[in-house]
Amino acid sequence: MTTTPDLLAPLARFTTLAGALSEPKGFGDASLRRRREGDIELLGGIPDDTALPVHELLAATERVLTGTRSGPAAFQYSQSAGLDELRSWIAAREGVPASRVIITNGGFHGLSLAVLSLVERGGLVAVDNPIFPLFLRALELSDGRTLPVRVGPAGLDVDELEEKLRAGARPTALYTVPDFHNPSQGTLSTADRVRLVELAERYGFVIFADNPYRELRFRGEAVDAGVFSTSDQVVHVNTFSKTLGPGLRLGWVVASERIAKQLVTLRNRQDSHTSTLEQRIVIDLLTHDPQWFDRTLTRARDLYRERADVVVDALDERLGGLIESVRPEGGFFLWPRITDPSIDPVALYAAAAERGATYQQGEFFASSGRREFADHLRLAYGNHTPETLREFVDRLGSAVDSVR
Amino acid sequence: MTTTPDLLAPLARFTTLAGALSEPKGFGDASLRRRREGDIELLGGIPDDTALPVHELLAATERVLTGTRSGPAAFQYSQSAGLDELRSWIAAREGVPASRVIITNGGFHGLSLAVLSLVERGGLVAVDNPIFPLFLRALELSDGRTLPVRVGPAGLDVDELEEKLRAGARPTALYTVPDFHNPSQGTLSTADRVRLVELAERYGFVIFADNPYRELRFRGEAVDAGVFSTSDQVVHVNTFSKTLGPGLRLGWVVASERIAKQLVTLRNRQDSHTSTLEQRIVIDLLTHDPQWFDRTLTRARDLYRERADVVVDALDERLGGLIESVRPEGGFFLWPRITDPSIDPVALYAAAAERGATYQQGEFFASSGRREFADHLRLAYGNHTPETLREFVDRLGSAVDSVR
Repeated sequence: MTTTPDLLAPLARFTTLAGALSEPKGFGDASLRRRREGDIELLGGIPDDTALPVHELLAATERVLTGTRSGPAAFQYSQSAGLDELRSWIAAREGVPASRVIITNGGFHGLSLAVLSLVERGGLVAVDNPIFPLFLRALELSDGRTLPVRVGPAGLDVDELEEKLRAGARPTALYTVPDFHNPSQGTLSTADRVRLVELAERYGFVIFADNPYRELRFRGEAVDAGVFSTSDQVVHVNTFSKTLGPGLRLGWVVASERIAKQLVTLRNRQDSHTSTLEQRIVIDLLTHDPQWFDRTLTRARDLYRERADVVVDALDERLGGLIESVRPEGGFFLWPRITDPSIDPVALYAAAAERGATYQQGEFFASSGRREFADHLRLAYGNHTPETLREFVDRLGSAVDSVR
Repeated sequence: MTTTPDLLAPLARFTTLAGALSEPKGFGDASLRRRREGDIELLGGIPDDTALPVHELLAATERVLTGTRSGPAAFQYSQSAGLDELRSWIAAREGVPASRVIITNGGFHGLSLAVLSLVERGGLVAVDNPIFPLFLRALELSDGRTLPVRVGPAGLDVDELEEKLRAGARPTALYTVPDFHNPSQGTLSTADRVRLVELAERYGFVIFADNPYRELRFRGEAVDAGVFSTSDQVVHVNTFSKTLGPGLRLGWVVASERIAKQLVTLRNRQDSHTSTLEQRIVIDLLTHDPQWFDRTLTRARDLYRERADVVVDALDERLGGLIESVRPEGGFFLWPRITDPSIDPVALYAAAAERGATYQQGEFFASSGRREFADHLRLAYGNHTPETLREFVDRLGSAVDSVR
């Protein structure tokens, strides 16, 4: 606690944090638009209801609350870093010591802790372009500046990043989604991960690797997920949101012991710890039947592969030559591109919404401050049945017809 | 998002927040001491295991997860401000519109949001002296300075605060525990609450009223809990931690609509929202049988009254004339004072710990930076049986004998 005034505080750009935080606009502010009965919304990275462990979680809750080892203990305070048993289960899966794992309230919380703790005020952060826009909101916590780096079909363009670093850019951190990129589908290769980590170590920035979709690869070859654990310069952010359900708000961070300790110190000044009850229930769920989680993932991958294929096939069939897609290898997002120059993206969005088919417009994902990616659509197919997805493409097709 | 550098950032006292956060020391860092088998720890504001709704919560979970209205919805994203049904239940009890209630991960989270959002960097905050020391940790989020205000047998000394304001002090906020003060037991009178609110409005500061023990009055006359809802200058922080269990991390804030919106904006950049599952379970618990919560409170009050009386009676009997106590009217804390000058508080603490009786030393609660309150002990009696509490006092008595 300081007892001397910070004389510069009144001169800072924002005296209170409230001033630095933006008003709701566009992406992520679903409440800004009126939803109508029968609308089909391909808006968010939301897992399907049928993939969520409703009955298994009830059984786990019963074991936790009636068990001799637990009961009331599930209602009491616990450690800020998370319960040892949950940290250990995750650590074993990640191939790191449990001391490098901390439990968070979902993946976004891990990003938020990393930004607030590690990015200096006004600090420069290299970011995906296109980007998951909510990261830019988290970055407001440190009033951070962005250095956009192009994301291509194979994830972050490490060449472009290296050029910027060689030209003198000195970011504090870099933000990227390495697996099944949000919004643009690509996955960073193992070789590029290794290069990225080398750059981070050479130029002294921290990689915020945001990896919520990582467990949902449904085709293609796995990349080496362990690369990010080899360096103290990586904060690897993960979550159960896409596998067990986002409403649980349960995620984790893998980081160096030094950074993990800093994040826990910050957490001690926030909400202290993630719900003991929920952590105990999820530990039971993951360990009661040791094969259960992997079986659940297998089922989920099958489900999302079918849905991805339904959308791609329907788009190719109905709108081939006008809108082009790349078949996803995992995750929840398709990032089709309007290839027919006679289609105005803004008019298309309006015509599709008119027909009850809504999606995120590509331009919301630019981190450059310029109008980019307007020729892209982000379609989130995870939480709709094949029938609904086909109906969505029919409506989109009708909208395309109406604006050409 | 800013695209121009904050030129002053490199000159600030701390470039990253990590630098501003203190290392663990003393209070609240239980891991710093070795716990031995058989130790009796009267350390924290912890509810008793027997007062927690273990079986009722299991039944509620079953209803939530098998119910037609809910099921998988409990696993999905929800609003940052909290679920409408829970906000409405709390709002009805508080006598405010639901738009003034936001759900948090416990009371401390509400304080943390308020500090980060409303206190400018290096800002001055008037605080209880003695104080709940963890608030000082939360205040580090804004690198805040403290203006200590004496807390007496009837809570915050509003006269002293008014003097300081008249003398020119201009705090951004004031932090106090109005009911069953932590650590010093007192409760602020209705008349003093009204005066405090008037001062906040006249001098333009925000009151952070931290009220976790408020529902646990077990004797004496209730004060008017509604005073704090009458002003836009109050952030009234509450929690289910002491009634349903701290491990749930479930609390709420009552604030003006403007401040509530600011806190939600910040929350959107943190962990997005409190667990949907847990909110739904607690809504069910509170509404399935509308009398259940009040019956639970009645039982809890009886439990804690008995325990408070056991400690006071045992202290009076064993250590009368050496250590003096005031009979508590509610909450979890006794703040006895060592009245015999031959007893050295530091030696007593060591001798008691040696005998397996630990408590918080009064000096940890000073917010003045000076050594104060060393002649006080904070005894947290909530989570120990009468037998254990009597044994604690026996050990303390033996320790007193050994150091006189």
